[in-house]
Parts: sequence; C-alpha cells; structure tokens
Amino acid sequence: MDYKEILKKAKENLNGSCRVCPVCNGKACAGEVPGMGGTGTGSAFLANYDALDRVKVNMRVIHDAKDPDTSIELFGKKLRIPVMAAPVSGTILNMGGKFTEREYISWVINGCLDAGIYPIVGDTAIDTFLPTNLEELKKVGGQGIAIIKPWENKNIIQKIKMAEEAGVFAVGVDIDAAGLITLALYGKPVGPKTVEEIKELVQSTKLPFILKGVMTVDDAMLAVETGASAIVVSNHGGRVLDHTPGVAEVLPEIAKAVKGKITILADGGVRTGVDVLKMIALGADAVLIGRPFVTASFGGGAEGVKAYIDKIANELKSAMILTGCKSIKDIDERVIRY
Amino acid sequence: MDYKEILKKAKENLNGSCRVCPVCNGKACAGEVPGMGGTGTGSAFLANYDALDRVKVNMRVIHDAKDPDTSIELFGKKLRIPVMAAPVSGTILNMGGKFTEREYISWVINGCLDAGIYPIVGDTAIDTFLPTNLEELKKVGGQGIAIIKPWENKNIIQKIKMAEEAGVFAVGVDIDAAGLITLALYGKPVGPKTVEEIKELVQSTKLPFILKGVMTVDDAMLAVETGASAIVVSNHGGRVLDHTPGVAEVLPEIAKAVKGKITILADGGVRTGVDVLKMIALGADAVLIGRPFVTASFGGGAEGVKAYIDKIANELKSAMILTGCKSIKDIDERVIRY
Amino acid sequence: MDYKEILKKAKENLNGSCRVCPVCNGKACAGEVPGMGGTGTGSAFLANYDALDRVKVNMRVIHDAKDPDTSIELFGKKLRIPVMAAPVSGTILNMGGKFTEREYISWVINGCLDAGIYPIVGDTAIDTFLPTNLEELKKVGGQGIAIIKPWENKNIIQKIKMAEEAGVFAVGVDIDAAGLITLALYGKPVGPKTVEEIKELVQSTKLPFILKGVMTVDDAMLAVETGASAIVVSNHGGRVLDHTPGVAEVLPEIAKAVKGKITILADGGVRTGVDVLKMIALGADAVLIGRPFVTASFGGGAEGVKAYIDKIANELKSAMILTGCKSIKDIDERVIRY
Amino acid sequence: MDYKEILKKAKENLNGSCRVCPVCNGKACAGEVPGMGGTGTGSAFLANYDALDRVKVNMRVIHDAKDPDTSIELFGKKLRIPVMAAPVSGTILNMGGKFTEREYISWVINGCLDAGIYPIVGDTAIDTFLPTNLEELKKVGGQGIAIIKPWENKNIIQKIKMAEEAGVFAVGVDIDAAGLITLALYGKPVGPKTVEEIKELVQSTKLPFILKGVMTVDDAMLAVETGASAIVVSNHGGRVLDHTPGVAEVLPEIAKAVKGKITILADGGVRTGVDVLKMIALGADAVLIGRPFVTASFGGGAEGVKAYIDKIANELKSAMILTGCKSIKDIDERVIRY
Repeated sequence: MDYKEILKKAKENLNGSCRVCPVCNGKACAGEVPGMGGTGTGSAFLANYDALDRVKVNMRVIHDAKDPDTSIELFGKKLRIPVMAAPVSGTILNMGGKFTEREYISWVINGCLDAGIYPIVGDTAIDTFLPTNLEELKKVGGQGIAIIKPWENKNIIQKIKMAEEAGVFAVGVDIDAAGLITLALYGKPVGPKTVEEIKELVQSTKLPFILKGVMTVDDAMLAVETGASAIVVSNHGGRVLDHTPGVAEVLPEIAKAVKGKITILADGGVRTGVDVLKMIALGADAVLIGRPFVTASFGGGAEGVKAYIDKIANELKSAMILTGCKSIKDIDERVIRY
Repeated sequence: MDYKEILKKAKENLNGSCRVCPVCNGKACAGEVPGMGGTGTGSAFLANYDALDRVKVNMRVIHDAKDPDTSIELFGKKLRIPVMAAPVSGTILNMGGKFTEREYISWVINGCLDAGIYPIVGDTAIDTFLPTNLEELKKVGGQGIAIIKPWENKNIIQKIKMAEEAGVFAVGVDIDAAGLITLALYGKPVGPKTVEEIKELVQSTKLPFILKGVMTVDDAMLAVETGASAIVVSNHGGRVLDHTPGVAEVLPEIAKAVKGKITILADGGVRTGVDVLKMIALGADAVLIGRPFVTASFGGGAEGVKAYIDKIANELKSAMILTGCKSIKDIDERVIRY
Repeated sequence: MDYKEILKKAKENLNGSCRVCPVCNGKACAGEVPGMGGTGTGSAFLANYDALDRVKVNMRVIHDAKDPDTSIELFGKKLRIPVMAAPVSGTILNMGGKFTEREYISWVINGCLDAGIYPIVGDTAIDTFLPTNLEELKKVGGQGIAIIKPWENKNIIQKIKMAEEAGVFAVGVDIDAAGLITLALYGKPVGPKTVEEIKELVQSTKLPFILKGVMTVDDAMLAVETGASAIVVSNHGGRVLDHTPGVAEVLPEIAKAVKGKITILADGGVRTGVDVLKMIALGADAVLIGRPFVTASFGGGAEGVKAYIDKIANELKSAMILTGCKSIKDIDERVIRY
Repeated sequence: MDYKEILKKAKENLNGSCRVCPVCNGKACAGEVPGMGGTGTGSAFLANYDALDRVKVNMRVIHDAKDPDTSIELFGKKLRIPVMAAPVSGTILNMGGKFTEREYISWVINGCLDAGIYPIVGDTAIDTFLPTNLEELKKVGGQGIAIIKPWENKNIIQKIKMAEEAGVFAVGVDIDAAGLITLALYGKPVGPKTVEEIKELVQSTKLPFILKGVMTVDDAMLAVETGASAIVVSNHGGRVLDHTPGVAEVLPEIAKAVKGKITILADGGVRTGVDVLKMIALGADAVLIGRPFVTASFGGGAEGVKAYIDKIANELKSAMILTGCKSIKDIDERVIRY
C-alpha cells in the first residue's frame, strides 16, 4: 500500500476537516477546534512543529552501526519502534464524520498491532465513547493503553476499572484537559488535580499509571511525587491552551530534571522517523504520534496505519545508521544540535 | 449571540475599512491611517501583536486552582476581568461610516457594563466628539473613564471638568498623540508635556489621573513624579509613530521600574483571554483592548460587545486553571516564558 | 500635490521597471539589474531595508521638545533636513525609458532646492552623462554635489574639474563601483583605490571630497587617513555586491570608530522621516536617499520631489517630538533600541 | 550564450522535474526525491541555502587588489576557479528523462574542461552507470574524478580500478549514501564504514582518496585518521537525511579542527561566485556545485555549462576585488560576517 495513495484517499475521506497538507504543521487548520487544528491562533500546534523542526541532526557516517536495533521495551511490552498511537477522538466532531469512532479505533488498534507497536485509546464527554474503544481493544486481548479525562476521581477510578477489565496494560489521565470549563455545564466537570488526588488514582490500580499533559519542570517533579509510572510531555496537540511552547522546546529541561525517575513519553509534531529520533535525543523514552494516525487510517484503514508505521520504522532505522546509533539507548544529545 | 456570526456581520458593516482577519495583527491594514491600521509601514501595530505572540505560556495542571477568581478592583470599582475598552474613535473616518459615533460608543458602554467591565471614551479634533461620548456615558451614571488629547493645558482642564460633570470615575490624557503636528494647522495644537505641565493637570481634578502613551522606563518614572494614578503602556495601537517596539516588549522593564508606585495599564495587540493573562504576567495591573471592540460592536451592537467580553472572560478563566492561578494577583512571571 | 497620486502616476511612468510597492524593500525587484533591484538574489538591497526595519524607536512624550529644529549645516550649506538626493542614473536602462536623464535630474535638482535640501548628481560609463547632469546643476548655480565613478585617477581629476566649473560645493567618488569588471571591456576600467591614490584625488580639489561606498570599520579608518571630508556608508543600494550586510547594521560600528574625525553620510533603505531619525541615531550626520526620488520625480516632476521631501520633513519633525529631540544633534542612541 | 536563455531552455527540457526557480533554494521542490528536491520536508536542502545566505560579505574598496587571481591548484591540477562539478545522476529518475546519462555527463565534462575546471562523475545502483560515465571521461583523457557509493569494500575497490583505468586523477566514496537501506533489498547493501574499512580503500589506490559526506568535527577527525586526501563537507544536497544542518553552518567548526591536515571541499547551496567566496572564507579549499550544472547543461549542453562557469568566475573575481583579495588564499574569515 503506497503511502502517498493513502494520503490522497485520506484527503477525500476527511471531508475538508483536514487538508492533509504536504507538511502537517498546524498552519492551514489554525484555530479549527472542532476540527484538526490548534486552539485559538493555532500557535501551540505550530510551536510543536516548529520547535521540533529547529532541532538539527548530526549526520555521522564513520562508524560500525550498520544494522541498528529500533526496538524498546515499555511497561513490560516489546515495541518494534519507540512509538505509540496517541489517543485521538471525535470522528464526527473533528474528522468530517465519514467514519465512526469504532471504525477509526479498530483500524488504529489493528494497524498498530500488525506493525509491532501499541495503540492508546482515549475518553470524551460522550459516555459511550470509552466503552466502545475498550470493546475494540478487548477483541485483541486488550493490547493497548487507555487514557481517561480528568473527571472527579471517583469517575476516573470507575473508568480505570473498566479499562482493567478490557485487559489494557497501562492507564492514565490526560490532565491537560483540565481547562475545558464548558464541560462543567453538562454536569461533567474536569479540572486540575493535586498531588494527593493523583496519588489516589495511582494507588487505585496495579497497572502502570500515566500522567499526560506535563509541560513544566515543576509539574514533572510533582508527577514523580505522585508515584505515577510515566508522564507524557504534551500540550494536547495544541488543542487546550493557545501559546504554550512546543514540546520539543521544554522536553530537554524536563528530561534533565526527571530522567530515570519516571518514564518520559512525549508527543507534539512528530511526523517521521527522524522526528522520533530527535524526540528520543531530546530526552523522551518513547513518543506518541497523533494526527498522522488519523490520515493513515482514514486513507487506508488498518493497512494504512501499518504502512505509516513501516514508513517511520524505515526512516528511524536509516536515521540511526546516519547518526551512528546501534540501539535506541544510543540516541542521545550528541545526535542533535539546536 | 455567536461570536463568529458577530465577526461575519462586522465585516459587512465595516465596509472594507477592516477585513476582520482571522488573526488581527495589522498585516492586511498596514499603513491604513485613516482606517484601522498602523501608521506608515504598520510596523508598530505588528510589533504589538508579535511581541505578545512571542510570549509563551507555561501550562501547569498539578495544583488546586480549580475555580479561579478573574476579578480585580481598579479606581475603587470592581471589574469582572482586568480589562477595559480602550478609547477608539472615528466611525466615519476609520470604520467605514455606516454607524455614528453615538451608536458606536453607546454599544461599547452598554456592552461593557452588561458584562461587568468599564468603557473608556476618547477625544478628537472634532469639538462635538467628547460631549457626545460623555452624554452617552452620563446616561448610565458616568460609569466609565474619559481620555483627552494633549491640547494646551487650559483646554484639557476644561474638558476634564466636562467629564467630571458626566460622572466619570477617572480621567486622563493620551499624551502619545503629541506628534499629530497637522492639528496645529487647525489652531488646535497638541504636544508633549513637561512634568510640571502634567502636575497641573493631575492637580486640577480629584479623580484618578491616567497618562496614556508611556513606552519607556524614563517616561514611566517621570509619570510617577507627576502624581498621576496610572500609566497606560501603549504606542496608541501603532497609529502615531512607526517602528515603536511592541508594548509587550517594553512592559516588563517598565513594570520592573514602577510597579507598585503607579497603576500600570497596558494595551497593544490584546485579543484573547490568554493575551490578558500574558500582559498581567508581564507586569500590567489591567489591560485595555481596542480594535476587537470595534468588530464586536459593529457586528453585534451592545450584545456583540458583551459576547466578546464573555468569550475572553472564559478564556482567561480557562488559562488561569491551566497555569495554576487562583486569582489575578497570582499571575506573575512564572506563568510565562520568553 | 498628493503623494499617493504621485506614486500612482509614477507606477504608470516607470513602465514596470519599478512596481512602486507599498513598501520599497527590494523583494519584488530582486535581481533586476538593469532595473531598480539589488544585484543577484537582491539580498543586499533587502538587507538595507531589513537592518533599518529592525531598529525600533523609543517613544518619549514627557518633555519640552515641542517645536524641534530639523535643520543641519553640511559643507557650509544649511539643509532643512539632514537629507540629500543620492546619485541615481539610467532612466533608459533602469527606469523604463519614458523620460530622459536630463528631465529626471532637472526634476530632482529643482525639487530638492525648492524644498530646502541639495541634490547629488552621478556619473556613468556614458560620456555625455556627467556633463548633462552638470549642465542642469549649473543652471541653478551649481547648488549640489557630483559623485564620479572610480576610473583611473587622471580621468577622475578631469571630471572633478568639470564639476568645479559647474559650481558644485563638494565632489566625490563612489568607490564601491570598483567591481564592475565589464567596464574594462569598453576600455574604461574602474577599480579599488589605495590610500595614496585617494589622497591624490582629495588633494586635486579645494572642494570637500566624499568617499562613497564604505562598509567596514577598516575602510572607514583608511578613509580618514586619505584626508577626505566625508564618507558615505553605503552598499550602492545593493547593486554591486550581493550579500553585503545592511547599512544600518554596520553604521554603528563605523560611527564608533570615526565619528567626529570625518563626516558620516549613509544611505540604504531610507524611505521616511522615521528612517532618517534612525540613521542619525545610528551615527550618521546626514543621509542620502535614492529610489524614492525616482518614484517622486517620475510621478510628479520637481513638484513630486518637493512633495516627497515635505512629507519626510513632517515625519521627521513628528518623530523628533515623539522622541524628545529638540535638534538633530539630540538624536542619539537613546532614541532607538535594537 | 546568454545565461538567462539557458535557464529558460532548461525549464522546458527538465519537464517539470525542476522549476528552475529564480533562487534555487529547495522550497518549490521540497520532498521531491526522486526529483531534484531535498528528502522529507526538504529542510536539509533549505538549510544549505539558508546557512550560506546568512553569511554576509564585508565589502572593502580601499586597497590594491585590482586584478585578483582566482585560480587554485588541487590534486596536482590547476583550476581556473576553486570549483568542481559535483557528481549528480539520474536523468531519467530525477531530471525528467529528456536526455540520457551519457548526454548529460558529456556536457558537464566538456563544459568544465572548456572553462578550466574539472568534473566529478558519480555512481548509482544501476550497474551500467559508472562505466558509461567513465567512458565519457576517458574520451577526454580521464580529466576528472570518480565518486563511488559506499558498497562493500571489495565492490568499491573493483570500481576504483575501473576509474583508474579511465585515467581519473582522484577517486572517492560518498559515504553519506549509507542510509539508503532499500538498496539492500536489491542485494546491493551500502552502509557506514569504520576507520579500518576506509583505510583499506585509501590504501587500495595511489590516487588521492576523497571522503564525501562529512558533517561533524568527529567524522572529520576520523577522516584524517584514515589517510584520505580530502573530505567533502556535504549533506548530499539534503537528499539522504532530513533535518541535517546546512553545510555552511558546520563548515567553520570542521575547518577549525582539520584545516591543513586534509583538503577540505564543501558543497551545499553554492550558486554564484559570491557563494564560492563565502565557502572559501568559511574554511573550504574548494567547492563542489551540483544542481546548477543540471540546469546549465539541460539548457545549453556543454556551452551552457561553460557559460555558467564563466558567469561564476566573473562574479568571484568581482567579489574578490570588492573584498580586497588578491588570491584565493587571501579569502579568509575577515571577508565575511555571520
């Protein structure tokens, strides 16, 4: 399945909700929330792309890294490449409405598993959303992760249980959804959480717990205190707070503060295998990718998802050869310049 | 009333004098004075927008600021958010001529008061302008502020008296209009003022006196000397001197010099609640907003003005949640990065 | 005569050789030599504009500079503003061919004198060019300056004599034309000159001698050694060497090295009175303006030239009020930020 | 032969594979591999152009460098200017298919030799490619260089012998092609090489050996260790690894580390004689130029190639006059600012 054909098809199937631009940087869709853009001026989405784009890669060719190993282990699982599909939702609201949530998530789940990585499913204000996603995940033995919105703790814990039953191997909360103050109008308030509140969540499950939406050193250090297994350095794809910095800009300082104390995941503007290499070099243990899974799945279903993963796996391998990295742990700050 | 609809309507009603761009940054209207643009190359308007745009916001989600208080007290008044409508004039000259000054200012006044903030009315070379504005303000009990052009002192003092009679709760001079040398041709010279001259103005009234148009630390310190209650850090929306820096660029150094000694207001490129948060974080006690009140009122009258204020109030509250600020005084330099 | 009308008319009369862009920055005409552009990629022209554009102006309004004096004295002459018309040539080659050199230069000469400043006439590979220009200058009593190409010294000295006879009050050489190696093919070699060679030129006349085309501190210091009266910091409008820095970028370091030892003139990207103020603040004693005199004269003849000068004189005065400068010598580095 | 006409003709003959843009910077063709663009986002091609563009040239006109010598000696050969034609291949795959490899390379070879410089021929996955190129080179007495892909050593050594037989005066490997992992699928694996492996190549021939594709100080120092005669600081025209820095950005630090210990060649974004001067000033002993030879040859055959070389030779000479350099070795860091 040719990736360019997938993108062409995706453009048709997304009904204008996404232009499937040659470079997916948040410019064309600025402000389109609902839609696929960043909130407000779209600057936080753009900042993700630009911050990563500014990082340059040091090409090295005199060495013996002829056949690099791109795999990692994460939460007890082997990943072919240090990548997971980020939780993305809203086929009707954001993606033009041609496909259902169920169709979308099943493609992402199956494409990921076929290609040797794992999917993360998400949660929304619609009650049926998470159950649908978990049903699809259960069909494949629960080989994935569930990320829940920052509702009141009792509701989160209930949903964690639901995810455990589906067999997921990790759970978490995208705490950066805390600013969606309109949800309170529907009786479903979300909000920030204190260390104590997060501790309660962490202790409610035996699964690794992930805190998604950390953008400062302060929050990263508090996250370590909560006992969570991992953070995702993320500004929610630029969709919750306009003018946040790019993830690649804050990642190095966060990694400097908490690397080794907590697993560091990151998302924001990752499109290619070279971008994966950069994020790892900036301090991430693994990365999440969001929007490209929408175009890949809308353009080619599970096969499209697999084609995309194969593509970035090849790019990552080639980039590791050209930077002299035999394994993912060899990818460090010497690989980049910024 | 939907804000997007308001903007659509505004575009029609502004007769091309303003394009109501997706991002109001001074690019499309560069040089359009008369009109809605910045003077000359338009760079001073653009600088306002760009300087504020460069300021990034530190998202924080691990805390207990679940329901922030967005209000402040200013000149003895309670404001729902730290925002006032800046004095803007010239419906015929600058805004396409469809509506009269009286219509425009009545919408701004009523919309502001309905939404819990206060309007500032302005002054021009047209003799009837200020009286008309003050008449409208008097209808609502004078709940607002009047800013007068830097005429000869005796004329200013006469106009201050007029404003006092209308019941305003503060007065001031937009001293940055000093460079309009063509006004002298009409026998109405404006000009800069010495500390002594400003002292005379300050002492001519019991109302708080505001000096609008301070862009340097030097002037800010002289302003303190005059006994004025407040300065407005402002380059007059980029309309008086091409190539002035952006307000957000000079605000921190000015705040460092005079914070606490004089109330610091600021305007220049503020469009959203996140922009309000940034300006406060940079050192302002409250901000003035100009052009967006033109589009809001031309698109939806008083209701449009209220809709715009409601929108930025929600944005500000959400931004305070996502930066961990329980009250306006919690918004400081830790909230931003630049 | 309305300046906008002049520009409109100029656009017609320039036959596409100049687009008369809203902002004259070298973008649209990049590489158009012959034509009105910068050489090669046009980057040296663009750099002139951009370097000056980056300089910001500190607005100050609390002071007593209510009626600034914009005049200076230069080479024993009083200038209404510190501006002269730069030598520009090639109505057929560069400016669309509608008007003759004689028409063009007579407009510039008369417009300048009517408006209280002085013109500089130039020299080219065409033998009749300089004599024609000097004839026109002689008609008004030689009230101007002649700048000669860097031919062999004996030829330059011959032309200096010709200029003296026309009554000019200063002469000079635009030594930055040294790289026009194709002129050697026509038996008219130009080239760089040593200190000794320039000394010979300086000593060949009693008139003040101007060295145009200095872009480094080294050359500026050598210029002082030659005994010349003035340098023009200039990259020849970006027309001789692609990728030279902007004049406003190198001017401060040159001024630091030779200010007071030699008169410092500068040209490059000056369009408005604010630009004049910036160049003076960066270290120039006076500025030369080139392209705007082409559009002003092609659009309105001598009247157009006068209208342009009146415009920038007003802008300069307003800018001096808004920066608190009572006289040109008050314009120093405190006026700007960069 | 007029160079503008050549470009016009080239545009027709390239069948859209290259737009022959006014400025060849990699923007229009971003991602077009196959084609003439940079890989992925095209950023590595753009970085080459931009890094060189950021370097400014210090114009100097008070000196006696009236007739500079532009020639150098390299690998025992005299070059009229310090330039060689870089190995470029793929007339069918990348250049629109109108001409054959043989036609293309014969034009480049003959144009270079007619104009006083030397061509470099390349190697691809197609077995007949190198022999065809060498045949053409042999016709002119082997006056050129051959660069071979980083195959397994025994294959490279075999090809070096082939090149020796054609009479070339230097050989090398473009080791930055190491990341083309798809070639392994065709049983023709390429890869990075250790110092030991490169030593074997160097020692397999008496000809000077060139290592093309060095982008870091580390690799440059290892290259010295291998005994190679020269490196080419190059990111392969941005075609092998997206997001590498521009050559002009890394060249100074590489030159600082190995200048004098190994001959430093460089390519990446060089278009004009001023660019040649910049690269030399940044530390290169000579430069390679790629894409402009495609347009010159496609537009005018060997004559087009000669016309292009004559053009940049004139530009270089003019630039040396305007920077006061009597010979290539006078071109050093004082010539530039960045």
